[in-house]
Amino acid sequence: MIRVAIIGASGYTGAESIEIILRHNEAKLVYLSALPEECGAVEEVFPRLAGRCNLQIEPLDIDKLSGLADVALCCLPHKVSMGFVPKLLKAGLKVVDFSADYRIKSTEVYEKFYQVKHTDTANLKRAVYGLPELFREHIKDADLIANPGCFPTGALLAIIPLLKEGLVETNSIIVNAVTGISGAGKNPSSKFHFPNMNENIFAYSIGTHRHMPEMEQIASEIAGSDVNILFQPHAGPFDRGILSTVYCQPKKKVAGEQLSKLYKDFYAGEPFVQISNDAPAVKDVAGTNYCHIFVTCVKGKIVVFSAIDNLVKGASGQAIQNMNIIFGLEETLGLK
Amino acid sequence: MIRVAIIGASGYTGAESIEIILRHNEAKLVYLSALPEECGAVEEVFPRLAGRCNLQIEPLDIDKLSGLADVALCCLPHKVSMGFVPKLLKAGLKVVDFSADYRIKSTEVYEKFYQVKHTDTANLKRAVYGLPELFREHIKDADLIANPGCFPTGALLAIIPLLKEGLVETNSIIVNAVTGISGAGKNPSSKFHFPNMNENIFAYSIGTHRHMPEMEQIASEIAGSDVNILFQPHAGPFDRGILSTVYCQPKKKVAGEQLSKLYKDFYAGEPFVQISNDAPAVKDVAGTNYCHIFVTCVKGKIVVFSAIDNLVKGASGQAIQNMNIIFGLEETLGLK
Amino acid sequence: MIRVAIIGASGYTGAESIEIILRHNEAKLVYLSALPEECGAVEEVFPRLAGRCNLQIEPLDIDKLSGLADVALCCLPHKVSMGFVPKLLKAGLKVVDFSADYRIKSTEVYEKFYQVKHTDTANLKRAVYGLPELFREHIKDADLIANPGCFPTGALLAIIPLLKEGLVETNSIIVNAVTGISGAGKNPSSKFHFPNMNENIFAYSIGTHRHMPEMEQIASEIAGSDVNILFQPHAGPFDRGILSTVYCQPKKKVAGEQLSKLYKDFYAGEPFVQISNDAPAVKDVAGTNYCHIFVTCVKGKIVVFSAIDNLVKGASGQAIQNMNIIFGLEETLGLK
Amino acid sequence: MIRVAIIGASGYTGAESIEIILRHNEAKLVYLSALPEECGAVEEVFPRLAGRCNLQIEPLDIDKLSGLADVALCCLPHKVSMGFVPKLLKAGLKVVDFSADYRIKSTEVYEKFYQVKHTDTANLKRAVYGLPELFREHIKDADLIANPGCFPTGALLAIIPLLKEGLVETNSIIVNAVTGISGAGKNPSSKFHFPNMNENIFAYSIGTHRHMPEMEQIASEIAGSDVNILFQPHAGPFDRGILSTVYCQPKKKVAGEQLSKLYKDFYAGEPFVQISNDAPAVKDVAGTNYCHIFVTCVKGKIVVFSAIDNLVKGASGQAIQNMNIIFGLEETLGLK
Repeated sequence: MIRVAIIGASGYTGAESIEIILRHNEAKLVYLSALPEECGAVEEVFPRLAGRCNLQIEPLDIDKLSGLADVALCCLPHKVSMGFVPKLLKAGLKVVDFSADYRIKSTEVYEKFYQVKHTDTANLKRAVYGLPELFREHIKDADLIANPGCFPTGALLAIIPLLKEGLVETNSIIVNAVTGISGAGKNPSSKFHFPNMNENIFAYSIGTHRHMPEMEQIASEIAGSDVNILFQPHAGPFDRGILSTVYCQPKKKVAGEQLSKLYKDFYAGEPFVQISNDAPAVKDVAGTNYCHIFVTCVKGKIVVFSAIDNLVKGASGQAIQNMNIIFGLEETLGLK
Repeated sequence: MIRVAIIGASGYTGAESIEIILRHNEAKLVYLSALPEECGAVEEVFPRLAGRCNLQIEPLDIDKLSGLADVALCCLPHKVSMGFVPKLLKAGLKVVDFSADYRIKSTEVYEKFYQVKHTDTANLKRAVYGLPELFREHIKDADLIANPGCFPTGALLAIIPLLKEGLVETNSIIVNAVTGISGAGKNPSSKFHFPNMNENIFAYSIGTHRHMPEMEQIASEIAGSDVNILFQPHAGPFDRGILSTVYCQPKKKVAGEQLSKLYKDFYAGEPFVQISNDAPAVKDVAGTNYCHIFVTCVKGKIVVFSAIDNLVKGASGQAIQNMNIIFGLEETLGLK
Repeated sequence: MIRVAIIGASGYTGAESIEIILRHNEAKLVYLSALPEECGAVEEVFPRLAGRCNLQIEPLDIDKLSGLADVALCCLPHKVSMGFVPKLLKAGLKVVDFSADYRIKSTEVYEKFYQVKHTDTANLKRAVYGLPELFREHIKDADLIANPGCFPTGALLAIIPLLKEGLVETNSIIVNAVTGISGAGKNPSSKFHFPNMNENIFAYSIGTHRHMPEMEQIASEIAGSDVNILFQPHAGPFDRGILSTVYCQPKKKVAGEQLSKLYKDFYAGEPFVQISNDAPAVKDVAGTNYCHIFVTCVKGKIVVFSAIDNLVKGASGQAIQNMNIIFGLEETLGLK
Repeated sequence: MIRVAIIGASGYTGAESIEIILRHNEAKLVYLSALPEECGAVEEVFPRLAGRCNLQIEPLDIDKLSGLADVALCCLPHKVSMGFVPKLLKAGLKVVDFSADYRIKSTEVYEKFYQVKHTDTANLKRAVYGLPELFREHIKDADLIANPGCFPTGALLAIIPLLKEGLVETNSIIVNAVTGISGAGKNPSSKFHFPNMNENIFAYSIGTHRHMPEMEQIASEIAGSDVNILFQPHAGPFDRGILSTVYCQPKKKVAGEQLSKLYKDFYAGEPFVQISNDAPAVKDVAGTNYCHIFVTCVKGKIVVFSAIDNLVKGASGQAIQNMNIIFGLEETLGLK
């Protein structure tokens, strides 16, 4: 039974991780921590968990953790995470880190987009990007996983086969995505106040979203050359899910059916990627670790649609998928 | 052309009032004020009004107001309002006050529910409760209107005919209401953060809502004896509207059709009250100043359903209806 | 491993049952049936289940079922169900029936509310009402469970302790409930067309809802005398959940704290009932088999709030809870 | 006072047109028609209009119309419309037609996309495309207006300045749009059944949407050469609004500020187009006839965001804007 600690348990990805582990047959929660002001019995922090989890959420005490847990799901925010991950590793835990701190290999890019100096470059080097569909073999042996961002997960799964096969112009990719509002986190704000967000949809972070360099780094790694992605996120009036609509220019003419076959072959063994024959709907993946993809050609361009749940495949579910791989468990445990 | 000032223009009822006055043929906006930190061009505060209103929202300057405006729609919060209303009156303006400060005639009850000493009892005495369906004649001559609360508007319109006719046990009334979230105002909070409020519904202010004594005061006035109301509000995942479901015990057996006829007769001349033959839907009154009511009997109890838009008939629309009455204009101007 | 057949698998409760069984460690799906025009691969009927379930949904063939399955979750509609249940029982299966056909013990009442003659009175007599919190001991030995209606589940859990203790006037109970729209089933209609239902809330089945006699039957059984319930359902703009707000008159004065203690004691051993210290929210139970309850006193009346997910505790989850009990499994399997 | 007939008054655009005309100072409703099965008092068809409009919706009788009305807002569906428009014109009415029947100048393209032979090519030739921002001068003298489609309105307003100035590669334009569900019309369907559409978003009509050739026709007319547009619509969980996100390749490098200035100059005199300094939100235009546009450059591409209300600027509002122009009224009457 894998013993799981959740660091930063009081946010949405923390709660989602707790729920998944509660259904997991070979892992159990042993420790939950959060900022002092967000501590208390789990059911006080999340009334939804009343009667389901008896743990206290307590201020982080690394000393207690050593020996108590096998793995930490580190749900801390960007910039905060790299202050704690080295200590968790030192305490002997495997770490799946939800923040961006170990995703961007170039500290220069990281520091430009996150506006802070990277303080743990040693671990940054050995962190493995936790997209199992791409890096399963490396994940097996890793003790630090940089769990992918939600948008990069949806976008990369949509374009990996194209990049692997070298089918598209690498400077032509446009990722137009719409996310549900759980992606904005737990802190109230004017933008996501119900009377503002309800019945609304708008673009944000125009040209500046931090998931753009993350996508480009992995895409370039796959393509073997620089890939340039125009990524434009939008916020939509629903809780969960990211719908990515990806447009790109094929190097040469290709038929939709060919692409569909390519994708089906490429993802044939993948437990959580499904190639659809029609446009995927976020509701069909909400609450699951699945990614639904449809690929086709329209007017000479390749158009790919992918749908994931931002809190599951885009965060906690993928983290636990990574955890399962690291510990040699069946990859789908807790996630079916 | 009536010249209108809106005091506290930066909130939802302020914005709604602006939109209504923009469509009003015999009134025009001349002055908008708010707290200094919420001032600026109208279209900066409300992008929705871009190109539609060129005024600045500015910090309140009573001196400027005198001579400039004929009426103030005072959209300030409870407790704050009574600090400014006397000055507005002194400056020669008629005032329609949106707060509760002039609604509760008993300072004892006011001070118990609002937890503050009443500082303007002189004006409190002469303020007229602005429910035109009940007090139209008094409104005509008033210079200070206490614009009713949103829940009292919906609940009172549902039960006035019963109370007028003395048909129900006055301690048997239960008002179960569900409001849209615009009723919670503009300030972000955890409860009304989109990912919490969306796909949710819950009761609040159990046994303590401040609109309960307001309902009881007016109901008692109509009935000529003490009326006791159990009022239970709920928050539902929509922007606008209040659905009130009222249960009460008739003094003697009565048929639904009789009640329906009674209501149709009672409200026959009312421009904004419609008696339906089926359950009203909040969507049918959203964005309008109408109240839809259906009354029937079930298992020996009278059940009345009423639907209003909390921001229109429950606030800004009713205020402008009152304004129209005060100035002798056609009552429906700006509200059709 | 319990072998489960789902009869009527193409609707919402069928889909929910499939998802729960997929997460169940000691039960597996062996057979899915539906009307011929709704058959096909599971993933065609429910794209959400792509890659998760390889079964075909096929037209019902009772002969195939015998020996193949241990239990049938019978998700057929009212009136249809009683045509098939006798055959399923004869084929040697235990049956958990989702319809109302075996809930109402009085054929007279059944025939009045469902407007059809009851054709299986023999099995009606021995069917056990599947509310585990009340009838767990009978469920253990049953081979035919009448799985409770969604509204009765929420309402009964809210009032059982009061009735058991004889604390309330039995003709004073008002159940005001709001349900999410999954409760309306899969067939499109004008009322539940998105542009009509979104941003809307309204009452329906005024004085006539079929769950009213069901509530009254069980409540009367508990109370030992006739209980009269005024049940008023409303439809609200969300997918899942029922919030019941129950008002009743205590026989003698009682404090909220006393009631809260009574409820906590009464439900102490229950895995799926949680007594809260504040108003429950449907979102906290959505997707779970839990019922959250808050009880208090307001102005001399007892007010009880209960929240369930209509598709889980109100349908498929409770059915599987019943199945677990029948087969001597841990009651919470698949439902945590 | 312009006398307005609405043909096809029982659908969403009919209802929206009625509400706008009710607020119009120089136009009044004189006649409403619909299919026989959708006729009746206005308030029976639209409970929302109870007390606001006393007309009957009646089966169309062209003879009655002659002399009774000055203009017909023809809200009939595609293919049906061209059967009635010639008769309305013959009866001496000006016609604003909401269908696509008079928008596509090439009968070949029309017949390909609408799968029906065009039966009124005579009137097709003289119909004026009713986008006032482009064709105001022609509209003034027209007696038949082809009121633009909702998506083309949002997309064209977003790209017209670029095309007029010849700034973009004409085969590079991608229009990614999300529409609210009122755009799908009044007839219930599985896709737009509340439990399916709520909390959902998905693409549809991939590569085949009928608004694509309409956009291309007008865009090409502006550009003076063939413009090729990849238009991809999505359906999102809200009632009203279309957010278009347009990507295109500039012919030469251009700065966002330059474009913003260009747009502000281009639309300077337009009453209903507002150039924003940030991403527009559909909620800011919902219920209004406004179009909010933001234009910028990202990674070498021009990105334009536009927001309209599909039922107002995308249908009924624009129709009445056209009507105002035809009759020489102030263009914003009824629409402020």
